[in-house]
Amino acid sequence: MIRIAILGSTGSIGTSALAVVDAHPDRLRVVALGAGNNAALLAEQVRKYCPEVVALASGDGVDTLRGLCDPPRTVASGAEGLLAVATCPSVDVVLCASSGTAALEAVLAAIACGKTIALANKEVLVMAGGLVMDAARAHGVAILPVDSEHNAIHQCLHQRSGADVRRLILTASGGPFRGRSRASLAGVTAADALKHPTWQMGQKITIDSATLMNKGLEVIEAHWLFGMPASRIDVVVHPQSIVHSMVELRDGSVIAQMGITDMRLPIQYAFSYPERWDAPVPFLDLTRMGTLEFHEPAWDDFPCLRLAYRALEAENSLPIVLNAANEVAVDAFLRGELGFTAIPDLIAATMNAHTGGVADTLDAVRRIDGWARDRARAGVRELQSIP
Amino acid sequence: MIRIAILGSTGSIGTSALAVVDAHPDRLRVVALGAGNNAALLAEQVRKYCPEVVALASGDGVDTLRGLCDPPRTVASGAEGLLAVATCPSVDVVLCASSGTAALEAVLAAIACGKTIALANKEVLVMAGGLVMDAARAHGVAILPVDSEHNAIHQCLHQRSGADVRRLILTASGGPFRGRSRASLAGVTAADALKHPTWQMGQKITIDSATLMNKGLEVIEAHWLFGMPASRIDVVVHPQSIVHSMVELRDGSVIAQMGITDMRLPIQYAFSYPERWDAPVPFLDLTRMGTLEFHEPAWDDFPCLRLAYRALEAENSLPIVLNAANEVAVDAFLRGELGFTAIPDLIAATMNAHTGGVADTLDAVRRIDGWARDRARAGVRELQSIP
Repeated sequence: MIRIAILGSTGSIGTSALAVVDAHPDRLRVVALGAGNNAALLAEQVRKYCPEVVALASGDGVDTLRGLCDPPRTVASGAEGLLAVATCPSVDVVLCASSGTAALEAVLAAIACGKTIALANKEVLVMAGGLVMDAARAHGVAILPVDSEHNAIHQCLHQRSGADVRRLILTASGGPFRGRSRASLAGVTAADALKHPTWQMGQKITIDSATLMNKGLEVIEAHWLFGMPASRIDVVVHPQSIVHSMVELRDGSVIAQMGITDMRLPIQYAFSYPERWDAPVPFLDLTRMGTLEFHEPAWDDFPCLRLAYRALEAENSLPIVLNAANEVAVDAFLRGELGFTAIPDLIAATMNAHTGGVADTLDAVRRIDGWARDRARAGVRELQSIP
Repeated sequence: MIRIAILGSTGSIGTSALAVVDAHPDRLRVVALGAGNNAALLAEQVRKYCPEVVALASGDGVDTLRGLCDPPRTVASGAEGLLAVATCPSVDVVLCASSGTAALEAVLAAIACGKTIALANKEVLVMAGGLVMDAARAHGVAILPVDSEHNAIHQCLHQRSGADVRRLILTASGGPFRGRSRASLAGVTAADALKHPTWQMGQKITIDSATLMNKGLEVIEAHWLFGMPASRIDVVVHPQSIVHSMVELRDGSVIAQMGITDMRLPIQYAFSYPERWDAPVPFLDLTRMGTLEFHEPAWDDFPCLRLAYRALEAENSLPIVLNAANEVAVDAFLRGELGFTAIPDLIAATMNAHTGGVADTLDAVRRIDGWARDRARAGVRELQSIP
């Protein structure tokens, strides 16, 4: 029996993870659940899975939860709550599916406790890839990627020697605005950007997918997960999202992983690894998929991708700034305070204002992250003041 | 230094193998070469590679060779010649690239000597898969497939447990007549059938590709190489020949191997395995490949594929009959003595005339093979006598 903790159990990935647990009640047991503010759904999950530990973002949420269900032994809130879920002694695998940067400390704590990490949160590696991977190595902990692209690469590599790998090739759907020019994107709304063609996901990641920043963050994530320099990580646009990603080997062979677009597959892969189990999803029928296309990304129309490469190649703390400014920019865009094409402009301006520095401690990461958020928020206000 | 013997050195695969040797003079050395009747080309190869052993099909060929070059220490002809090449003591890897059934005894002899087998000859496994795989297991010998489809599957499996595999999916280009009805194919000529859209190959295999028998033989070969029943081996038509084949895992993930259509890649893979080396071929650029399509095979228009499944499912010596009748039929078609659509008819009639029997010795294989050839030749004469 594999005992699971989920950080972000009420989100899109979290509920898919619970569906995987439902499909394998003889193999998986939910032991700890952490959520943000959705006390009602967490209460349902508590009734169904009877976890030992639960957490919510706020004390108010905890009060609401107590009114809705018979609470577990341990109920906590805030950063302390996330830590309690991530370090719960009986847990084997921690699925980190809470979005944003809040989960970083919890992941580091889980690693220190020797938990296997199933990682669905991009920001953890984008902000602190060096810290996290060093800690994982030091504690002999596996970081199993749940993002479909990195999960695909993990499957393609399948313990192959790094010396045999020439290039990682991340596929990108291209998002809802594929084929459109930058000029034509100035007036698009959040509602337009939230219509993703192939994947059903949370709001933040769906906007990141529309700007291609999602792929940029994935390039940085791939660098840390697989120890590859930016020059050996490529992006190819593949609108059908059937090929989840590829690995080019030194002899020219390309190994690809394909599947239907359902997050239960990579989540189950991470829970079951190194085993494989039957999955609660339909099999892929390539003969009914139409044709598969592959294109170069439109670098100039979607500048976020190039910004991410620039941040990664800088080999300092610039990815923290990229990520923080992007979170602020997407948030402002979703609230209608920032235009779509102003997102990369705001990020670039924030990156340009950064004076460098190495982020080799969690405190340093937090300080640069905080600075970049403040700077980006100031940037939003400046842009709003322009008539 | 890996020492190589090549059975069929003057053919399409053989010359590609020598190009691989040319690309890796520090890693590969040619020690023994066997050819059919092309003494002139073999003489060139002798001058260039200075092998210890060479063989030709006939004594006349040997005489011609002696007139064209300074011959190696050992020069032999006929079945004895093939055996001398296959069992040459200093050889590590025997590439079996001679077409047809003549190489079977040589492969068994090479296995008995503990040589690694790089197998490009389909008939060896179609006729005697049980004998060959049993011998390989008994002698701890690896059989590395050079056929691009089986080579792709070998790469996709990459030491994965058989319990994790749901299905092998062989891709087929569909050949030059893809999309045409059986009725429209009655009058096609050998010249039409020899125009393969994606691969440059020998005549026999190109005709087999046009009838889809090539894929049928590959299904039988995959059964033996990977220990999969017919029910777990599928064929999908993929006209672009970029995806060389795929493995579907039990959780629904599909692992595919892609590459350019150049036989040097799978040959080098077999020579270098378990290592990988840089290859003397261009890298695949998926963004310049147009679109990739996948279709169900046209079972009724190309009956040879179903005949091969029927032979494999019979679990007796029927694949020997299928293969022998196909060789006779293709030979007759190439000489203009048999129509294209009569190829499957002749094979089916020969299979129907077979009374069964287990082929558990080389002699039994030869007897059934001989019977089937005689029966098929008689069938060609009968069809020719019909006005």
